[in-house]
Amino acid sequence: MTDRLTSQIAFLNEADRLKTVLRATKILDATRRENSGEHSWHIALYAMVLAEHANRPVNINRVIRMLLIHDLVEIDVGDVPIHSQGGDAHGSTETQAAEAAAADRIFGLLPDDQAREFRILWDEFEAAESDDAVFAKSVDRVQPVICNLETGGGTWPEYNVTRQQLEDRVGWKVEKGAPAVWTFLKDRIAKWFAAN
Amino acid sequence: MTDRLTSQIAFLNEADRLKTVLRATKILDATRRENSGEHSWHIALYAMVLAEHANRPVNINRVIRMLLIHDLVEIDVGDVPIHSQGGDAHGSTETQAAEAAAADRIFGLLPDDQAREFRILWDEFEAAESDDAVFAKSVDRVQPVICNLETGGGTWPEYNVTRQQLEDRVGWKVEKGAPAVWTFLKDRIAKWFAAN
Repeated sequence: MTDRLTSQIAFLNEADRLKTVLRATKILDATRRENSGEHSWHIALYAMVLAEHANRPVNINRVIRMLLIHDLVEIDVGDVPIHSQGGDAHGSTETQAAEAAAADRIFGLLPDDQAREFRILWDEFEAAESDDAVFAKSVDRVQPVICNLETGGGTWPEYNVTRQQLEDRVGWKVEKGAPAVWTFLKDRIAKWFAAN
Repeated sequence: MTDRLTSQIAFLNEADRLKTVLRATKILDATRRENSGEHSWHIALYAMVLAEHANRPVNINRVIRMLLIHDLVEIDVGDVPIHSQGGDAHGSTETQAAEAAAADRIFGLLPDDQAREFRILWDEFEAAESDDAVFAKSVDRVQPVICNLETGGGTWPEYNVTRQQLEDRVGWKVEKGAPAVWTFLKDRIAKWFAAN
């Protein structure tokens, strides 16, 4: 019991560092960039609220757990903005290898059984193939879009994002997991890009 | 569908403000105070990791959902530190009435069925009677203790907290929901108070 708690609390303390990882998107009052800890909370809440819009039946509890742990690798790797380096950085082999090493280290702090369980969940999210992972990814992708729309485009101008790039890098992923949500946003997105 | 999404996204945008509510506890690198958004993420992760230490069998998925929404009322009321006003502010009638009004307003942004569902879950957490709520409360209470221990006492000196007060205001609640976790921490707590 003591050994398990020592490992578990070491992991939870390490996780605290996610609160210092800054993302491209700002919080809605535009006073500062969002950190990956509060982002993880917000999208878990998104999943809870938007579950009914999942394209296929999902186990919402697994989706929420996936979202709670999906960004922990950023403690070592940092956030890689979707629109950085012309949209190429995010899925690069280098980033993926670094994130896998981070997953080894960070989940490895937990007792073995939990380390395995968390790693399997993270791998499933990254693979983006299961219904749960596809919906989780759509929620993760749509939150920054909504934040940017609410803050006059947010950080889109800074990254020189075009409407087509938003569709190519983000839109289809949201549409795949939560089509009604993307349809709902399309008008507002079109209007913003037409005006800017 | 459009009506539901309009309400749901209004709620999710309002929830963003929880990222600007500051708590008494600092994050572990001690550079700044923790906000209630990232705190909510951290304790949902705590629940996921520490579920096996629950005093009685819990539905961990309900516990996690409870923790994701439990602090939203702070958007209107602010965080009321457990050790503020000599430990009396937190459970005061005024605070409880203000939080109930905040719950009406904030959950009321959701479609009716979800507003009811979230409110029932929040009421259950606040009542701290069900096994799920007792464990959720223990997790919510223990995270600041661990943060304070990791940061040389954290904000205990600022609030002039004694070891007895920590037991009276926090310890028994952690012990009720997760006795092994409190037992695990007791030695470290005793050492810190003996030295300070």
